[in-house]
Amino acid sequence: MIDAVSYHSESGSLELLDQTLLPVEIRKVRCTSEHEVAHAIVSMKVRGAPAIGVAAAYGIALGLASKANQSGDFNSALDAICKLLAATRPTAGNLFWAIDRVKRVVLAAAGGDFIKGADLALKEAHAIKAEDIAMCRRIGEFGATLLKDGETWLTHCNAGALATAGYGTALGVFRAAREQGKNFKIFVDETRPLLQGARLTAWELSQEGFDATLICDNMAGSLIRDDRVQGVVVGADRITSKGFVANKIGTYPLAVLAKYNGVPFYVAAPESTFDMSLSYGDEIKIEERDHNEVRFIGGVQIAPDNMPVYNPAFDVTPPELITAIITDKGIIRPIYGQTIPEIIGRKRPESLS
Amino acid sequence: MIDAVSYHSESGSLELLDQTLLPVEIRKVRCTSEHEVAHAIVSMKVRGAPAIGVAAAYGIALGLASKANQSGDFNSALDAICKLLAATRPTAGNLFWAIDRVKRVVLAAAGGDFIKGADLALKEAHAIKAEDIAMCRRIGEFGATLLKDGETWLTHCNAGALATAGYGTALGVFRAAREQGKNFKIFVDETRPLLQGARLTAWELSQEGFDATLICDNMAGSLIRDDRVQGVVVGADRITSKGFVANKIGTYPLAVLAKYNGVPFYVAAPESTFDMSLSYGDEIKIEERDHNEVRFIGGVQIAPDNMPVYNPAFDVTPPELITAIITDKGIIRPIYGQTIPEIIGRKRPESLS
Repeated sequence: MIDAVSYHSESGSLELLDQTLLPVEIRKVRCTSEHEVAHAIVSMKVRGAPAIGVAAAYGIALGLASKANQSGDFNSALDAICKLLAATRPTAGNLFWAIDRVKRVVLAAAGGDFIKGADLALKEAHAIKAEDIAMCRRIGEFGATLLKDGETWLTHCNAGALATAGYGTALGVFRAAREQGKNFKIFVDETRPLLQGARLTAWELSQEGFDATLICDNMAGSLIRDDRVQGVVVGADRITSKGFVANKIGTYPLAVLAKYNGVPFYVAAPESTFDMSLSYGDEIKIEERDHNEVRFIGGVQIAPDNMPVYNPAFDVTPPELITAIITDKGIIRPIYGQTIPEIIGRKRPESLS
Repeated sequence: MIDAVSYHSESGSLELLDQTLLPVEIRKVRCTSEHEVAHAIVSMKVRGAPAIGVAAAYGIALGLASKANQSGDFNSALDAICKLLAATRPTAGNLFWAIDRVKRVVLAAAGGDFIKGADLALKEAHAIKAEDIAMCRRIGEFGATLLKDGETWLTHCNAGALATAGYGTALGVFRAAREQGKNFKIFVDETRPLLQGARLTAWELSQEGFDATLICDNMAGSLIRDDRVQGVVVGADRITSKGFVANKIGTYPLAVLAKYNGVPFYVAAPESTFDMSLSYGDEIKIEERDHNEVRFIGGVQIAPDNMPVYNPAFDVTPPELITAIITDKGIIRPIYGQTIPEIIGRKRPESLS
């Protein structure tokens, strides 16, 4: 199994698969301090919110262990480590959540001892990683019931082992289906502009011997029309209380093409992706990213100098286009304001109702 | 105006805008012999079926002129020139049509004289170029009536001046609308895998000062959904007698997205694009191209080594998704087996009915 964030107890180091080099080069980066972990997060050697959270949790353990022979105040050292790691990617929700969780456990039980603190942090990091994998496995098991033997499914972007602690959400569905003995094929959208499908999903699936074929994003339509795709599954960045799904740009067109051609369209995401404070899609702010992501590919200029560009990172798919949302708590179908809290066990906050 | 294929009478040479270098470098290639023209076609310095036809026609004139001081049989020299030029791109219909047309005129009236033959070929090449521009202008004028002041339209691939003798089909609609004094904005799909939108259409439109914005193909969907696009116009490679349109891969998804969101979807193409021997879309053979077009961009590897790829060059859009086909003979709307021959003045061959 692909393990992009792995702790090695013999050497006391964290090994990260350098995702900036994939798929051309497979190289692991070894981190022995919080500084090296922070640098790996900033430089996107590790990416995907759950994977970043796990890496930061290990970073706290490494930071405390490296200070065991130094004098100095435990609490202020812990604070400094956590601040350094939290400052790496200012918008990654899982990052702060993981750091806070580890910090709380360490503060409560380490008693100011660096060795004991490092040990507690390491155990908590292991737990966060194991819980993430277990959560993805539950998503995978629910999702795999929807995939029939002999079918071909399509996915977009990378909602896989590389983005999580090791099993993936959308790609977890494929892993679980294979564990259930099903045979199937996968089409992978390359996912412009950052090509996470071509660079990461294609690598991840071919590493594990899945029958996967890469296409450009604009080729999915005719495959769906020609009955060559029996299901589409994607991840999600944020889901509102009424089932509007923000995900990587290019998700909405796939949902329309699937609907128009009668092909089921699934979203796979953990319960934590639901933002119950929002109702409709237009409440989700869509980040617009650097225009050079479109004008250049791997340093090669593909458009005129200073060509005006529009580069939204996400789009929003409305619930009427989604056949079901596959969560770690169960499958939500049909999707509307009542079914979502029934499955995920959380309601829209009273103050907003 | 962009003039990608221009004859210079002072120097007796053909200047071709090198489309392999666009948009990073604007360089003209000067051809003074049929060999140089053939090489420019083979190496895709000139591309787009109408543009290739015009270049080959001039190539015959250059070939005959260069042999004026040599002894040798006129007819066999003409044959050799035509064969050389015809062997450059074995599937470009306009290439053979243009060569045949020039050859027939020269054979009928040159009387074995190289100087006279070169002059006749040059006049015919000028005529072919002028007729192509006039045909595009008629498409543009019909199409511009559909574009309202203040609207934003979207286009895909390059159906522009660079692909024709100088005015374009889909982009001819924008040129004509501007000549009519209309203000409007254009979104340009980059058009993976070969990026004709980013490299050629973006360059062509920005050169002429149009208000154009480049997007990745998978961004068109949310723009259409958000009412930021009031019309879509694309070219066509082949249209059947019942109105099925084969065009650059990615056209069909745009048509579905436009239909789903109530936005008009137009195809702009000359009468010569209609293949009345075909009825339905599945009769059109879709060329699958080199897998490295998807795995590499400008020499940069973006997918794992030997990753399986599916790379269809075209897709087929059925008539029920097309609001109208804009031809040089008029606008076909609605599109079905009766309206097409009424406008283009050609029927399905009796033997096939």
